[in-house]
Amino acid sequence: MSSGMKQTGQKNLMFFSGRAYPELAEEVASHLGVKTTPTTLRDFANGEIYARYLESVRGCDAFVMQSHTGPINKWIMEQLIMVDALKRASAKRITVIMPFFGYARQDKKGRGREPITARLMADLFKTAGADRLMSIDLHTSQIQGFFDGPVDHLFAMPVLVNYLRDKLDLEATTIVSPDTGRVRLSERWADTLGTPMAFIHKRRDLDVANQVTVNEVVGKVRGRTCVLIDDMIDTAGTICKAADALYEQGATNVLVAATHAVFSDPAVDRLKNSRISEVIVTNTLPLAEDKRFDKLTVLSIAPLIARAITEVFSDGSVTSLFEGDS
Amino acid sequence: MSSGMKQTGQKNLMFFSGRAYPELAEEVASHLGVKTTPTTLRDFANGEIYARYLESVRGCDAFVMQSHTGPINKWIMEQLIMVDALKRASAKRITVIMPFFGYARQDKKGRGREPITARLMADLFKTAGADRLMSIDLHTSQIQGFFDGPVDHLFAMPVLVNYLRDKLDLEATTIVSPDTGRVRLSERWADTLGTPMAFIHKRRDLDVANQVTVNEVVGKVRGRTCVLIDDMIDTAGTICKAADALYEQGATNVLVAATHAVFSDPAVDRLKNSRISEVIVTNTLPLAEDKRFDKLTVLSIAPLIARAITEVFSDGSVTSLFEGDS
Amino acid sequence: MSSGMKQTGQKNLMFFSGRAYPELAEEVASHLGVKTTPTTLRDFANGEIYARYLESVRGCDAFVMQSHTGPINKWIMEQLIMVDALKRASAKRITVIMPFFGYARQDKKGRGREPITARLMADLFKTAGADRLMSIDLHTSQIQGFFDGPVDHLFAMPVLVNYLRDKLDLEATTIVSPDTGRVRLSERWADTLGTPMAFIHKRRDLDVANQVTVNEVVGKVRGRTCVLIDDMIDTAGTICKAADALYEQGATNVLVAATHAVFSDPAVDRLKNSRISEVIVTNTLPLAEDKRFDKLTVLSIAPLIARAITEVFSDGSVTSLFEGDS
Amino acid sequence: MSSGMKQTGQKNLMFFSGRAYPELAEEVASHLGVKTTPTTLRDFANGEIYARYLESVRGCDAFVMQSHTGPINKWIMEQLIMVDALKRASAKRITVIMPFFGYARQDKKGRGREPITARLMADLFKTAGADRLMSIDLHTSQIQGFFDGPVDHLFAMPVLVNYLRDKLDLEATTIVSPDTGRVRLSERWADTLGTPMAFIHKRRDLDVANQVTVNEVVGKVRGRTCVLIDDMIDTAGTICKAADALYEQGATNVLVAATHAVFSDPAVDRLKNSRISEVIVTNTLPLAEDKRFDKLTVLSIAPLIARAITEVFSDGSVTSLFEGDS
Amino acid sequence: MSSGMKQTGQKNLMFFSGRAYPELAEEVASHLGVKTTPTTLRDFANGEIYARYLESVRGCDAFVMQSHTGPINKWIMEQLIMVDALKRASAKRITVIMPFFGYARQDKKGRGREPITARLMADLFKTAGADRLMSIDLHTSQIQGFFDGPVDHLFAMPVLVNYLRDKLDLEATTIVSPDTGRVRLSERWADTLGTPMAFIHKRRDLDVANQVTVNEVVGKVRGRTCVLIDDMIDTAGTICKAADALYEQGATNVLVAATHAVFSDPAVDRLKNSRISEVIVTNTLPLAEDKRFDKLTVLSIAPLIARAITEVFSDGSVTSLFEGDS
Amino acid sequence: MSSGMKQTGQKNLMFFSGRAYPELAEEVASHLGVKTTPTTLRDFANGEIYARYLESVRGCDAFVMQSHTGPINKWIMEQLIMVDALKRASAKRITVIMPFFGYARQDKKGRGREPITARLMADLFKTAGADRLMSIDLHTSQIQGFFDGPVDHLFAMPVLVNYLRDKLDLEATTIVSPDTGRVRLSERWADTLGTPMAFIHKRRDLDVANQVTVNEVVGKVRGRTCVLIDDMIDTAGTICKAADALYEQGATNVLVAATHAVFSDPAVDRLKNSRISEVIVTNTLPLAEDKRFDKLTVLSIAPLIARAITEVFSDGSVTSLFEGDS
Repeated sequence: MSSGMKQTGQKNLMFFSGRAYPELAEEVASHLGVKTTPTTLRDFANGEIYARYLESVRGCDAFVMQSHTGPINKWIMEQLIMVDALKRASAKRITVIMPFFGYARQDKKGRGREPITARLMADLFKTAGADRLMSIDLHTSQIQGFFDGPVDHLFAMPVLVNYLRDKLDLEATTIVSPDTGRVRLSERWADTLGTPMAFIHKRRDLDVANQVTVNEVVGKVRGRTCVLIDDMIDTAGTICKAADALYEQGATNVLVAATHAVFSDPAVDRLKNSRISEVIVTNTLPLAEDKRFDKLTVLSIAPLIARAITEVFSDGSVTSLFEGDS
Repeated sequence: MSSGMKQTGQKNLMFFSGRAYPELAEEVASHLGVKTTPTTLRDFANGEIYARYLESVRGCDAFVMQSHTGPINKWIMEQLIMVDALKRASAKRITVIMPFFGYARQDKKGRGREPITARLMADLFKTAGADRLMSIDLHTSQIQGFFDGPVDHLFAMPVLVNYLRDKLDLEATTIVSPDTGRVRLSERWADTLGTPMAFIHKRRDLDVANQVTVNEVVGKVRGRTCVLIDDMIDTAGTICKAADALYEQGATNVLVAATHAVFSDPAVDRLKNSRISEVIVTNTLPLAEDKRFDKLTVLSIAPLIARAITEVFSDGSVTSLFEGDS
Repeated sequence: MSSGMKQTGQKNLMFFSGRAYPELAEEVASHLGVKTTPTTLRDFANGEIYARYLESVRGCDAFVMQSHTGPINKWIMEQLIMVDALKRASAKRITVIMPFFGYARQDKKGRGREPITARLMADLFKTAGADRLMSIDLHTSQIQGFFDGPVDHLFAMPVLVNYLRDKLDLEATTIVSPDTGRVRLSERWADTLGTPMAFIHKRRDLDVANQVTVNEVVGKVRGRTCVLIDDMIDTAGTICKAADALYEQGATNVLVAATHAVFSDPAVDRLKNSRISEVIVTNTLPLAEDKRFDKLTVLSIAPLIARAITEVFSDGSVTSLFEGDS
Repeated sequence: MSSGMKQTGQKNLMFFSGRAYPELAEEVASHLGVKTTPTTLRDFANGEIYARYLESVRGCDAFVMQSHTGPINKWIMEQLIMVDALKRASAKRITVIMPFFGYARQDKKGRGREPITARLMADLFKTAGADRLMSIDLHTSQIQGFFDGPVDHLFAMPVLVNYLRDKLDLEATTIVSPDTGRVRLSERWADTLGTPMAFIHKRRDLDVANQVTVNEVVGKVRGRTCVLIDDMIDTAGTICKAADALYEQGATNVLVAATHAVFSDPAVDRLKNSRISEVIVTNTLPLAEDKRFDKLTVLSIAPLIARAITEVFSDGSVTSLFEGDS
Repeated sequence: MSSGMKQTGQKNLMFFSGRAYPELAEEVASHLGVKTTPTTLRDFANGEIYARYLESVRGCDAFVMQSHTGPINKWIMEQLIMVDALKRASAKRITVIMPFFGYARQDKKGRGREPITARLMADLFKTAGADRLMSIDLHTSQIQGFFDGPVDHLFAMPVLVNYLRDKLDLEATTIVSPDTGRVRLSERWADTLGTPMAFIHKRRDLDVANQVTVNEVVGKVRGRTCVLIDDMIDTAGTICKAADALYEQGATNVLVAATHAVFSDPAVDRLKNSRISEVIVTNTLPLAEDKRFDKLTVLSIAPLIARAITEVFSDGSVTSLFEGDS
Repeated sequence: MSSGMKQTGQKNLMFFSGRAYPELAEEVASHLGVKTTPTTLRDFANGEIYARYLESVRGCDAFVMQSHTGPINKWIMEQLIMVDALKRASAKRITVIMPFFGYARQDKKGRGREPITARLMADLFKTAGADRLMSIDLHTSQIQGFFDGPVDHLFAMPVLVNYLRDKLDLEATTIVSPDTGRVRLSERWADTLGTPMAFIHKRRDLDVANQVTVNEVVGKVRGRTCVLIDDMIDTAGTICKAADALYEQGATNVLVAATHAVFSDPAVDRLKNSRISEVIVTNTLPLAEDKRFDKLTVLSIAPLIARAITEVFSDGSVTSLFEGDS
């Protein structure tokens, strides 16, 4: 005979989105069968961001998505502020979804006296109140370890591979890493597709001081279709030079597949003007109309995110979503 | 007879600046008699910030200054990243200097489901590695309590008062708060100058639904010189309406004194076109040439910051720098 | 086919009270429809406090209330100890209810080398195990930001206003702040009631060195009923001098409304002997019989607290309870 | 009309075991009516431990048991790693069960520049992600306070007492502490059984420099059955010398009862060769066949652990399990 | 050629005292050869404590002493507030000195749903900003492990033993623990003095239900001088009953030695009226004149504290101060 | 005129070593010109580790080295315990030196429900009290980001390259990565030496289900000297198969260079029996006599560690020690 008052517990999924890429949020919400929670988000005159939720979030299982696109620091800060507001409004659990993890490339000190900004990001979100992170194709898998809590690391490779499999003659295809940093990723592709692999070695030309000039192809590409793969395409400089090198070495066709279409200037011009025959990316980041071009294919990542959210909410386990990292 | 190796300890002050307002940094460094530490700061193509110090910072007593001006989220993030790099490069103590504390106005939940972004800012800097904060004229003094560590809260009032004292006939002067939020600040001014005070009450006109229309002057201003004071001027809407109300009530002259010249659009136009006779501010924030106008006076805050840094470094105590808050 | 054992989750509200003001606890419990959980609380011979719960609290949603009345340090420590015992006994969530937040006035460093005790309090309760705080009319709203977690900030103004509205001729009423620190609060009252406002400026008499003597009324009060409002009445010195000043300036009637009746000596004598016609307070703090007097009206805060607890427990959102802060 | 998606909450108990003592885990699981969750645990070639759960653990209420037997550092590390994996796989709550708390004896600095390893252990498990600890007969009860969270401290005394009560003529029995550190424990036994008590004082023989030689019996044991009690038997040196001293002082029979059978070499030889008539222990630690001998009785602790897990999972309160400490 | 400004580092010891026992502080300061730092400490009308240092404490090595005497919660809170003020005023390192550690007896959960207040105290001081603790004769040595940082645990035994050694005929002396909890402490005394030992067993009289009545002496005391030792004397009930039991068993003389003279009512009456011939304590806690009596001897602990502070400040190591715990 | 006592600050380097590899510690200490601090380290009968420093460590700048060799969990735990003892004995700063970072390979979740043990290790050392880490050739550079504080990441490549440069005809040499995970490391070697590079692709033979069989060499190696490089050699399976593949593809000579000689069974047999002409490693880990063989060359890492310690202690910056990571 206790003194209290009892109620059956209930879980309540709520989905939130910053202003960076509302179209993706709507797409995810639609797959989830929920509405994005009505939220006021606006800039004050001096650029400070104001946030307020228009419905009660007490006790909810909150999923807050933001695409880390430009102006990237603003959108990251907006997401941090949204998390703070959720924490102070008594959300029960807060999962931060960043389809593209901003600053993922600064994941180590390349030289002395540099920051490790990717770790800093993880810590900032923890401090703001994030209980969990969800992201897609982290630049390096070790970034999972930067967050002090569960990280759901999703893979876009199945989405890209499904699209490509029918288009390619796998017998005549080689998976190519555009530099030495993506060799492991390309190995996973090669394993999945059962193809050989190659990579580009940016070798210093010793005749010219302090200058990278030679793009040496390591592996056999002559007479083959080459799929250059990467986690992200930023300015497309590396990828376009890699394509050139492949054609020079006798490749008959070069396609590019990447998860994150950062597409900073002059990426679009470079890709358009290159001999690359098709560029396949996902929509983890928004692509304005003027960044789209004929040979670009954009596959939607929204179904993957929606399925992952559902699994997390209902404590399920579609392991195929989260596994396969290496 | 111990086993170790001994050395005399040494303290080493190093001064760092972000890119938001290098001119103020140079001015402070010059007063300190040091050089700003050479630092690489640049944007990657997608807007991510890169930072690296070009000299060893091991064991130093670091002071990292950034003006929280527009694009404000970018410059805050840059300062966070600089702090992370200092921490990982073994700086001994890190003092973050933010002459204007960004997001200071979001220092409470005005309504349910809002963030408390000023507290979030304090926590983010703590997480990045800040041991101490230094700031000038915080929007509310309580913000000191948001940081888990020492905060050096400087006051620009003496700088502004020194300038004004000779210009005014104090017998005929009234200090005016432009709204109810700055009444305490104006009381400090009134106490210092020995003048009466007044304030503007933004009263709802009950004949027009849900609309603030009446700016009622509470206190006597007829036939007097009025000094409107504030911690910051953002769009200058409030301050200009306050000046109008004062002239309507018979004020003979209205000046404005404020610490932080945020001057978001359309502040400059409003101030220029107003009947305010002089606007006195400090340079805690940069003011581009096109934001300067004839009746604007900008006083330098650099000597104050330099003296405070020296005190903090040498464990001194010029209490007049830090006291007087209320 | 998993390996575990499943049960439907349940939430269990339990309500706890320290010894400072058991009558308020009983009143709140009665509104909630629960019993206060039986608890042993007693002093050891040397004043150390002993606590033990007489029922299991495993997994409960605990609400622990204590009034921060005198001896205030003892009752705060008792509440901290109660929280520790709840944490170690596996309470699921712990909400600390402090109707009056002790040490709220030390919410900033007024001068160098002072503590910020209000922040310290928030941190001590966090350390002891508090997940959330609930309080009424914080001395400044910024104190919400001192706690690292959700704060339910309730407002007694509706309770007080409901009582007063019928008693006053609003056309002839002015809301008055007894000093410059409560001007914003009085603005909220004035906005709610549609009345003008005024405040008292404690001006230094420059003929007498270093002494506050002049209580100058800023605003029009002649021929009007004045309602002096404040968040708390401690020794009543300020409020009684303010009332005198108002009568001197021609006010026809002066009432006082405040949330927290601290009533330290000689508050009761001062109020009794003053010309104030009625003093309206709530029972956030206990008032012994000898602290009650004819013109004192005490309104109960218990229904407000009970409703807020219910909302928090059931993840509801009566936003009117928590909003309206400024 | 909110935007979210609702589900009824569910709790899911999952039970995990390290490799140190799977037999005890199976016994506990059997009492619980669950299966131990299938888990891969193995050593890499250089001794690093690999862990992976073969079923989803999302949202579960996890209980992870490991016996801190030899090689003790390996098994502690395995348990830490298991906790980390649970945390990162989104277990909702993690209870670490260590029937014997490794390093419990280093619970204070006996001399300067020693560690307090028992506190370190508590902190390491907290850092790895443990929300709660469960242990049996801690070396000192203060160790509960080393963990920042709930500790379920179980007592084996009822198990041992139940076994002994029928065997002894309580009128002729004395409970004996083998040294001064267990006097309080023996007092609890004496109180429970209603017998007198005694203890052994290891007194320095002042004729021989710096050497403990005299085992002085304090209390009356002549003609009585003596039960030597202890929380653990490690090398059995103290307990065997204590038995000798008791026989020398005229005890007619000496039994030994202890919770944790550490039995490091040469414990088994010493006990076998001693005049002790029976040694009663529990199975908090595994005892290989070659460590068992005729006069050894091993009582199972599994029912106690299973009942405690059930209570914790279902927020029940069989206080008799957890109380009685002193 | 670096950019900074260099200075030789300096350490600056500053000593602070709360209001609980200023006489001891003056005595310690005098041994140190410093002045207690001038500090404003006072109560507000409602009992809240105000603190402010009257000299700069920037960069100092701060030692803050408070005796945890009655009103104990107030003095503990005052010390916490002093630590917060030191932290926010940029003290470099803060050592909290509590000659008697308040709440040390609540160092474990004796029963379910109790707090572990001694751990809570350690955490509260850590949260306020303490880097280190210093205390004398902790109730149990395990309390050292409650603080996350260095603890200097001093022993008063040498002070007491030095005084007693000349007064006693050690051949005819027995060290006696008044209950089973102090047997280890008395063993240390017995080892130091080379005497036998005994203890009192509070045995339940089984003829009278649920009542402790029999104080059974375990060990030989007939014809001997007995020294009852304890870490503290609170109400003196246990110690006086122990003395009675010793005389009943034929002791010729009983003295009492204890470190902490808590002396809560009715300790003084009991001791005065007892047959105890002398009570020897230290001044870790203040003893008002009306708590002193003829057969009471108070030894000063100040020299011990002063030596320990000097060692800590100068990184020395008089290990004899800190060692010998068991 | 302040109240304190002043002293000139002094720094005191002290060097400590666990029991895993005392020879390396002696070598480092000798280069530093200090003695390893005398320390008691021993196992209790049940395997628990005891630690105590035999000299005062108050205020020292402590460097604690341990090689994470087998039994690896024991030696890691010993280092954690040593750090705890340093923290509690008031060391001023604690740098943990782990020449080989144990569990570095578990730096991500390769599959769901795995731990990230490398992050856990970083957190455990932080919890124990480590302020900084120092390590050599981390398995991935991202591990720097796992520690919340400065990490000095040293590189053995210069040591290995210096040795090899004279032995090789660089015109005829190719640097080879034994799998796709070390391609970036081999790129650094190739850049430094100005040679081409190649790698081994472990390709699944699609004719045989689920089995890795084909070691495909990507890059040109025919007629060339190949240097297989890796950060560590554990069982040497990969490296020996890689060597076979290189010889099969026409390499004229194969050498192996690696930093960490883990050499778990059957590494030595494999290497001895392979066609590899020379194996060059460093002594970050101990190599027993029976693990040494004719074609093995062991280079000392001690000078590098000693120089790094000196730099850290004296706040210097030999950037070449710490830079070059990619």
